[in-house]
Amino acid sequence: MALINDLRKGSRFALSRVLSQVENNTPAGLQALDELFPFTGKAHKIGITGPPGSGKSTLVNALTKQLRLHDREPRVAVIAVDPTSPFSGGAILGDRVRMLELQNDRGIFIRSMASRGALGGLSSQTEALSQVFDAAGFDFVLIETVGAGQSEVDIVNLAHTTIVVDVPGLGDDIQSIKAGILEIADILVVNKADRPGADQSRRYLKAMIEMGFRPLASSAGKHRMAPALQKDETETIGEQEALWLPPVLKTIASQFEGIEQLVTEILNHQHFLKSTGRWKQKETWTLREIVRKRIAGTLERDFFQQLPAEVFEAQMEALIARKVSPTTAVKNLLTYNQKSSKPQLSE
Amino acid sequence: MALINDLRKGSRFALSRVLSQVENNTPAGLQALDELFPFTGKAHKIGITGPPGSGKSTLVNALTKQLRLHDREPRVAVIAVDPTSPFSGGAILGDRVRMLELQNDRGIFIRSMASRGALGGLSSQTEALSQVFDAAGFDFVLIETVGAGQSEVDIVNLAHTTIVVDVPGLGDDIQSIKAGILEIADILVVNKADRPGADQSRRYLKAMIEMGFRPLASSAGKHRMAPALQKDETETIGEQEALWLPPVLKTIASQFEGIEQLVTEILNHQHFLKSTGRWKQKETWTLREIVRKRIAGTLERDFFQQLPAEVFEAQMEALIARKVSPTTAVKNLLTYNQKSSKPQLSE
Repeated sequence: MALINDLRKGSRFALSRVLSQVENNTPAGLQALDELFPFTGKAHKIGITGPPGSGKSTLVNALTKQLRLHDREPRVAVIAVDPTSPFSGGAILGDRVRMLELQNDRGIFIRSMASRGALGGLSSQTEALSQVFDAAGFDFVLIETVGAGQSEVDIVNLAHTTIVVDVPGLGDDIQSIKAGILEIADILVVNKADRPGADQSRRYLKAMIEMGFRPLASSAGKHRMAPALQKDETETIGEQEALWLPPVLKTIASQFEGIEQLVTEILNHQHFLKSTGRWKQKETWTLREIVRKRIAGTLERDFFQQLPAEVFEAQMEALIARKVSPTTAVKNLLTYNQKSSKPQLSE
Repeated sequence: MALINDLRKGSRFALSRVLSQVENNTPAGLQALDELFPFTGKAHKIGITGPPGSGKSTLVNALTKQLRLHDREPRVAVIAVDPTSPFSGGAILGDRVRMLELQNDRGIFIRSMASRGALGGLSSQTEALSQVFDAAGFDFVLIETVGAGQSEVDIVNLAHTTIVVDVPGLGDDIQSIKAGILEIADILVVNKADRPGADQSRRYLKAMIEMGFRPLASSAGKHRMAPALQKDETETIGEQEALWLPPVLKTIASQFEGIEQLVTEILNHQHFLKSTGRWKQKETWTLREIVRKRIAGTLERDFFQQLPAEVFEAQMEALIARKVSPTTAVKNLLTYNQKSSKPQLSE
């Protein structure tokens, strides 16, 4: 495919086209993903999450610039996800304006993505876009998500490194949220550290981490794995006692303070992942999930394509009238399709 | 089943047991849901969502008390969902302590629920618990969720009435979030209205609603419907030009101010839903989704039970080595199961 060749040669136009195809889940997009697949597996995916008002966009902006300053001049892609606006596309995309200045650097590519109400599909889409950037030769893919709900956790699950951004003094309610999100953090950042209470926030986070992670240090991050993989991981990691205690950094992203140290910690974490085998485990888990979801989606689609609409509607009517229970309705529909399916060709 | 009879007779112990069975998705829980199903369809499900710090818990507390004061003495259930803490069960559950005083009222039942990292399953679980309360004779089920991500929207989709809670002066970032979440709100509440900026927040929200909803008024809420139902809804609602302009209320939940008016608006909305046929549409949509998800889950489970682990692992190895693409791996696995499946018995 000419588009794929152009993309691999560095064409931003081709990259843009393919990203749209992939995001819109078109047949061309699926084909592109397949053709690009052999070239994937190299990019370092970094998730950045935190509550609204923590200055994530500004931090991503600063981080992108700082990464570019590295000796090897890595190429950096940014995927900005806005799950708070599932329908409209979101006013928050306006924040991206401040990133326009980055667009002049050919080593940077920024993509905004609204979730468009894609039920459960947002993390799959984000992963697919990451693969495109990966195959296009980007060394880092930064994935910025707002908030700390389940869908953000799903997205973060795809990242090699998760940065949780906090801000001093957002009140008690916010503090309690961090207890939950702490467990997904590989690096913690107290941004806007020129505000009062920054040191207090940092001490609090450090204390939470020491309490929560010390005793379970070697299992940190295990929560994120699918059950199928947990056994393998225990076997591999158990002996090595691999330990990553999330550092807590202070930054003032708007003034570019603390960003150099953040990059250092990201590279430290990259080294940790690669030297302990976790990098490969993450990739295995991600690929498993891709295959599992694709299979599940195909099975469901095929099932409902085979099922006559009137058969489905009849069961729904009976259900609404409380003449059948959901279990009976499901059983009836499954049985119908089984009976009416074409006999298998014997091999 | 004795437990079901006891639950129907008003036993709190039986209710508690069944809720646990259902939440843990045990076979007994599934059976209980089926046996309770004929008694469902009456409860008014109310979703309450908003950013951390907006005082949702306090509002739910006050709202519960106020609903109980109604002439008919309705029974009120509360499901408190904490999606910000998918792994740990969450410090935020501590907030529930302040609701303990409600527990002395036998007409109130409060259930806290951590998401437990159930990927995409949280909304299904919440709906299942609602059904139990519904069958147990509760007139209102309040579902409190934190934040405004996709999973919260999924939960809110199940509610008849969605209350979005806001608080004055949380800053610009928060303001932009509201643009997205506005579209799911049936009633807007500016809580902590004794804080500076309350009137400004209210005016802002009113303006946003008038801009966004006036021209599209008859389609408000349509975004929430599954594509399959959108056509039906347009047909039914289109002629009636049913209109619900979300009211914007000010409350000080901690001082019980504005709560009576909130209850009035909830009952207004209930009347609106029932008189326009939307109540039934919502139920139809919810039941469709239940059946669809159950079928999809069964198909996936059966598929992977039938597939030998070594066949799956071989494809995964090939995938990781980039010898096959995801599409090819998926195709190979689907073909394997198709070929090896037992021949159908002809009827």
